Amino acid sequence: MDINELASSLDIGWTLLAAALVFFMQAGFAMVETGFTRAKNAGNIIMKNLMDFCLGTIVYWLIGFGIMFGTSSLLFGGIEMFNDGMVGDGYNWTQMIFQTVFCATAATIVSGAMAERTKFVSYCLYSLIISAFVYPVSGHWIWGGGWLAEMGFHDFAGSCAVHMVGGTAALVGACILGPRIGKYSADGKVHAIPGHSLTLGALGVFILWFAWFGFNGGSTTALSGSSAEVAARVFVTTNMSTAVAATVVMLITWLRYKKPDVSMTLNGALAGLVAITAGCDTVTTVGAAVIGLVAGFAVVFGIEFIDKVLKIDDPVGAIGVHGICGAFGTIMVGLFAYYDYGSVEVMPRGLFYGGGADTLVTQTIGVASVIAWVVVTMLVVFMAIKKTVGLRVSAEEEIAGLDIKEHGLTSSYADFIPVAHAIYEDTEPAPVPAVPVTHIVSASNEYGEMSKVVIITRRTKFELLKNALSEVGVTGMTVTDVMGCGLQKGATEYYRGVPLETKLVPKVKVEVVVAKVPVEAIVEAAKRVLYTGAYGDGKIFVYDVKDVIQVRTGKTGYDALQYPEIEK
Amino acid sequence: MDINELASSLDIGWTLLAAALVFFMQAGFAMVETGFTRAKNAGNIIMKNLMDFCLGTIVYWLIGFGIMFGTSSLLFGGIEMFNDGMVGDGYNWTQMIFQTVFCATAATIVSGAMAERTKFVSYCLYSLIISAFVYPVSGHWIWGGGWLAEMGFHDFAGSCAVHMVGGTAALVGACILGPRIGKYSADGKVHAIPGHSLTLGALGVFILWFAWFGFNGGSTTALSGSSAEVAARVFVTTNMSTAVAATVVMLITWLRYKKPDVSMTLNGALAGLVAITAGCDTVTTVGAAVIGLVAGFAVVFGIEFIDKVLKIDDPVGAIGVHGICGAFGTIMVGLFAYYDYGSVEVMPRGLFYGGGADTLVTQTIGVASVIAWVVVTMLVVFMAIKKTVGLRVSAEEEIAGLDIKEHGLTSSYADFIPVAHAIYEDTEPAPVPAVPVTHIVSASNEYGEMSKVVIITRRTKFELLKNALSEVGVTGMTVTDVMGCGLQKGATEYYRGVPLETKLVPKVKVEVVVAKVPVEAIVEAAKRVLYTGAYGDGKIFVYDVKDVIQVRTGKTGYDALQYPEIEK
Amino acid sequence: MDINELASSLDIGWTLLAAALVFFMQAGFAMVETGFTRAKNAGNIIMKNLMDFCLGTIVYWLIGFGIMFGTSSLLFGGIEMFNDGMVGDGYNWTQMIFQTVFCATAATIVSGAMAERTKFVSYCLYSLIISAFVYPVSGHWIWGGGWLAEMGFHDFAGSCAVHMVGGTAALVGACILGPRIGKYSADGKVHAIPGHSLTLGALGVFILWFAWFGFNGGSTTALSGSSAEVAARVFVTTNMSTAVAATVVMLITWLRYKKPDVSMTLNGALAGLVAITAGCDTVTTVGAAVIGLVAGFAVVFGIEFIDKVLKIDDPVGAIGVHGICGAFGTIMVGLFAYYDYGSVEVMPRGLFYGGGADTLVTQTIGVASVIAWVVVTMLVVFMAIKKTVGLRVSAEEEIAGLDIKEHGLTSSYADFIPVAHAIYEDTEPAPVPAVPVTHIVSASNEYGEMSKVVIITRRTKFELLKNALSEVGVTGMTVTDVMGCGLQKGATEYYRGVPLETKLVPKVKVEVVVAKVPVEAIVEAAKRVLYTGAYGDGKIFVYDVKDVIQVRTGKTGYDALQYPEIEK
Repeated sequence: MDINELASSLDIGWTLLAAALVFFMQAGFAMVETGFTRAKNAGNIIMKNLMDFCLGTIVYWLIGFGIMFGTSSLLFGGIEMFNDGMVGDGYNWTQMIFQTVFCATAATIVSGAMAERTKFVSYCLYSLIISAFVYPVSGHWIWGGGWLAEMGFHDFAGSCAVHMVGGTAALVGACILGPRIGKYSADGKVHAIPGHSLTLGALGVFILWFAWFGFNGGSTTALSGSSAEVAARVFVTTNMSTAVAATVVMLITWLRYKKPDVSMTLNGALAGLVAITAGCDTVTTVGAAVIGLVAGFAVVFGIEFIDKVLKIDDPVGAIGVHGICGAFGTIMVGLFAYYDYGSVEVMPRGLFYGGGADTLVTQTIGVASVIAWVVVTMLVVFMAIKKTVGLRVSAEEEIAGLDIKEHGLTSSYADFIPVAHAIYEDTEPAPVPAVPVTHIVSASNEYGEMSKVVIITRRTKFELLKNALSEVGVTGMTVTDVMGCGLQKGATEYYRGVPLETKLVPKVKVEVVVAKVPVEAIVEAAKRVLYTGAYGDGKIFVYDVKDVIQVRTGKTGYDALQYPEIEK
Repeated sequence: MDINELASSLDIGWTLLAAALVFFMQAGFAMVETGFTRAKNAGNIIMKNLMDFCLGTIVYWLIGFGIMFGTSSLLFGGIEMFNDGMVGDGYNWTQMIFQTVFCATAATIVSGAMAERTKFVSYCLYSLIISAFVYPVSGHWIWGGGWLAEMGFHDFAGSCAVHMVGGTAALVGACILGPRIGKYSADGKVHAIPGHSLTLGALGVFILWFAWFGFNGGSTTALSGSSAEVAARVFVTTNMSTAVAATVVMLITWLRYKKPDVSMTLNGALAGLVAITAGCDTVTTVGAAVIGLVAGFAVVFGIEFIDKVLKIDDPVGAIGVHGICGAFGTIMVGLFAYYDYGSVEVMPRGLFYGGGADTLVTQTIGVASVIAWVVVTMLVVFMAIKKTVGLRVSAEEEIAGLDIKEHGLTSSYADFIPVAHAIYEDTEPAPVPAVPVTHIVSASNEYGEMSKVVIITRRTKFELLKNALSEVGVTGMTVTDVMGCGLQKGATEYYRGVPLETKLVPKVKVEVVVAKVPVEAIVEAAKRVLYTGAYGDGKIFVYDVKDVIQVRTGKTGYDALQYPEIEK
Repeated sequence: MDINELASSLDIGWTLLAAALVFFMQAGFAMVETGFTRAKNAGNIIMKNLMDFCLGTIVYWLIGFGIMFGTSSLLFGGIEMFNDGMVGDGYNWTQMIFQTVFCATAATIVSGAMAERTKFVSYCLYSLIISAFVYPVSGHWIWGGGWLAEMGFHDFAGSCAVHMVGGTAALVGACILGPRIGKYSADGKVHAIPGHSLTLGALGVFILWFAWFGFNGGSTTALSGSSAEVAARVFVTTNMSTAVAATVVMLITWLRYKKPDVSMTLNGALAGLVAITAGCDTVTTVGAAVIGLVAGFAVVFGIEFIDKVLKIDDPVGAIGVHGICGAFGTIMVGLFAYYDYGSVEVMPRGLFYGGGADTLVTQTIGVASVIAWVVVTMLVVFMAIKKTVGLRVSAEEEIAGLDIKEHGLTSSYADFIPVAHAIYEDTEPAPVPAVPVTHIVSASNEYGEMSKVVIITRRTKFELLKNALSEVGVTGMTVTDVMGCGLQKGATEYYRGVPLETKLVPKVKVEVVVAKVPVEAIVEAAKRVLYTGAYGDGKIFVYDVKDVIQVRTGKTGYDALQYPEIEK
């Protein structure tokens, strides 16, 4: 056996494992996007994430790979259909699968920003065009021997080539599409639309972080020779940037929203991953930490700016994470480049390490050119789709949910009761001043034979209430989770920096039907345990009951409400 | 250091990483199976998936590995208990773990088809027998130097040896077990039973796809020499078949059910994975795409045939995915074989590449023999279990759910309110023709002092209603999510090709108790915003209220319903 | 190319992939911990898991790595800040990332035992101290050339260095923190607090098992030479111990609680993983099986002892899994050591293989010393935090949930209706003897024009009831999921060995409003299908209705309740 052949086997194995990990990012994106959006669109989002990969695989093979890695010009690779990775003499099966999974990542980023309102057929169309054409062209410039590669533009694993392309397309798409119904009021107010499973969203972030070791570490596409050391450095810098970015975002949200925001911090981790991707091979650990730190600021203020100032509705923060941090990370290479990439490429150091401004200029030119390319092409693509098949579902479909309307799926969670969410939030009731308790009436009314008493109060008071009712002789009750909707307001909470309306307050409804136990006793018991003097203590309603039948015994009326031992 | 030793280390490392990935398929199967079934059985399904792997590991070590890789005859390997992978001189620790995780995959497939009604103890028993005996015997034929291996039967990573064995056992099991209660009416009608989390089901599919790169790519069990190139090709063909199959299934369901079906498309991806597994090393990318395409058709029509014609209830589509596509993929090798597997094995090309029908015949003989073997042995196993400990839980246990009855687990989701599902769907109310509105009464009734008005309407109308009630002076309300159950029917939706009953329609119940605000005003406001003229506009009910007590202030009656600023 | 360089590349690649897998354990821990606890704390737990890794990465780089791998003394490595893995001449980037992910694992273990009641800021503080100081010091003793390493203490992948350190810190923390509200009654009774998603918990266990192949297998930090065979053996022993432990726990719970417990069995798998970690390189497969077997017993009885006797509240069983099984597994090396670790280290065999008691004594000294170290330092840390910023949230915050109070997150599952859980369970109503049905009244009461009939019964009876009501002419109904709360009790179920209170029983409430259909007919129909004679058959309530308005037609009263075809 020849040592070079063995080295080649090792390189192939490394790249293939990285490709598998990059594929796994699809699972991560699917979980982040579905977790950060509403349950009524979960199946649709899953389907879009699955389909962009499937369609991307097919069209990238059909023409994308040839466009990206063909050698015909500095602007455009070439048309080489059904290419199995055999362009020129430098590529092969390994390259084919590795590049395919990268391509699909770019396409999938867009779905998050356009979630919950894009037609499925239109999604398939533009996703297909991104994978077949938009991504491969700029990819050719950067990685396929195109003009940016010639200039010395450095984007190791794709902050620009993959993430910024996806994020820019997401920006164009979200602009043209417009915000989700209920996101912005007519008066310009911004509303938070919380996701339906932060747990799955977090799982997605962990999966992405894990898979990113393949995305960045595998971008050596080799492990023999100096590549192993580069890969190891990439693991360290990738991890450091991410850890710092998430920490910084946690601290920023803690300061700005008074409490550390969970979903924004998850975005922070992704921001650190995206930002380090361009320079992960060349920066020092300190450089990585600084890039992570700045990425943390960029993502929080970027998302807030997009959401509150530009009023572009990006449900999962894809534009901020992939677009802004992708561009930022690419430019940072011009400041923080330190190590050169072994024997493959000799790159001048960044501005901060005495390498002059050359790299910084090159990186900026690259970023600007790619943004221009994506904005122009995607504008054409989205407008063409909008004018033909249409880009957005109808308002009725959007409110009912894309699962039922686009896929005939009643619910992705058929066994759980969904919440009836408020949709329009245009009017705001006047605030009500708290008043002191003026008098406590002695509720001595005489009630008839059988009465239903309904108590609506805080859920946290339920157990106390149950015990209090038990003490006055109530032997059975029916408990329902309801939402109270009144003028009362709790403290303002923030979801990703946007005030959260809490007008629909979770309450518990306890119903008891009594004959022997006096209603007055129940009312007094309830008041005793429920009273705090604050808004939200609840109300007690009394109704007549005409009859009661106990199924087990067949007893009716008064008798049906008594327990056996009381009968004697 | 010797280069052959280093090559061996590389091969071992590759195989071990693949083994870890194949283990991870257990997570994928667990998520697919639990996501596609009901919440009340989630813990039971998790437990079965965990236990088939644990028991499989133990009994495969105990006797399975020896039966599979012993060298005593072409039909049966041998009894070599507690084998650490040291059969003859060719196997070792690496082989031991790699074969163990494959074995467990076969066993786990069965659980999906028999989900939601199989006794846990019986599941443990037959799962143990599959891993200890049924899988190892046919595995010996194919991979252990048995008679099929001698014939030149080619099953690279186990379309037949693993998936078809599992799928066939699943078919036998589901037949003997019978359908879930509520799946088929007495009149032969098929009912859809939606899963409780398509999101987790989709996550499972992504995990399986990811892990399949280890399942197929690792089946080289080597990376040195030509194995690296084979592994790379395997990655490309595996990915291509899967992408095409999922795309084709999406298109078929779009045409047949009018909308692209989410869960069937997920099954489509799995079908592509299973079908390519036998020939992933030997087919071209085009061959892989064609296999994926046909697998897409096979899985949709296969699942429909099993479900609607054979009336075999397979909750997750395991028979269609693993049985049908496993057999189909194995046979396809006879048509599409192109590359020979490096120096290890020289195989004639398939029929489509001028290799004649020999391979096709061999593959078909192999498939038929293994089906016969599994059907016969599993019939004996299942019937023996049925006659002794019993195979199926009681109807009461099935309706209540296996979590509570088999594991004492009140719910796997203790914090969420489950939906009360309809179980029997034998009668169908006559359709009701829509009638035009004939007259709108002027609701001028005089109501008493305090009334409760209950409005039950579409959930999507809630916000409009809330605002309308606010405008007429209603200051508080209680909102409950309920299910409306009437004659009204929406458009028929399909879940995996089966019409979905939508008689239980999600509704919102809004309750307001008023004294000062006239009931008439509330009714008019509600009618104004709720009226569309279509079925499902809702109803308004008016009740007497005997008394109201506001806990915070102690006020009763009329006063309890007024907000402070109104009091003055 | 030089063969030693290639071997080095292979070793680096192996270790990096293992590091990625160990990172992925964070996802596993996050899912286990959040799945086994309540929905109201899900975001908080996610955040803690994310942050311990992020903060750990930073401080381990800042000072932790230097303390652990510095060479200044046998007790303490040294202060070498911002170390990139370059201590002495033996470490590097690869080592840096590999050690970082191990460190974070130790820190993350603590969060599970202290879940649902620890202040977020305090969590960040102590997690940071563990990663910066506590773990690195004992880590230096064991892996950094410290005094235990000198003694020949063997802890291959960290049963002691990682898991026992985490588990011991968890024990100290849970003791000082005290139990969750509602966990123990004043009378000493233990209450089960079920987790909110066993499915996610199980996914976490599968992820951990998968990632553990990297944790243990990658701890060779090499693949060339004899390391490959060691790695393969590690895969086999790790898998075997885990499979046996999970099986044993399933059987123990089956015998003790009458039914195989899902969540305890999941803990069993983790127990097997933790216990084998110290000796996975040196024990035989049989040794691994025996270690798994004993770990199964250790975890069940350990968790029960901690929960019921010590009355320490550990929501996820972290102390039992990581603390007890970590210590136990480390000591077992003294009994079961068999293979020596290639050329790197020559270790005497264990007591059971004729190696004498030396290793056993060394292992025991190591375990005792590390426990002492962690107990003392963590006592200081926790007490210092308790006295300054405070360790525990207020009772109000705990009851409302840490998501809303610590992170301003209304719910991590905004689209699903949460259950109103009982919190205090101090009083227990007297048991009620079942009585035979004495008489079935002929409910011939005359009711007025319009009545509301409300039936509250078992959810499983819903479909029968619906059909029965349909037969007597009821054309519409409203269905609500409610919880019935009465004296009735079902069979006692066990959750992780603790009796589960089932006083809040899921019920369905069916409301029909009728005019033409006699109430008596409804009552008789309901009684016919609902009657079983057992507690829980339900009750039927009858109320007056003042008016009904059908929105679609505008009809009121009697007319509003009739369907079109009946009108003629």
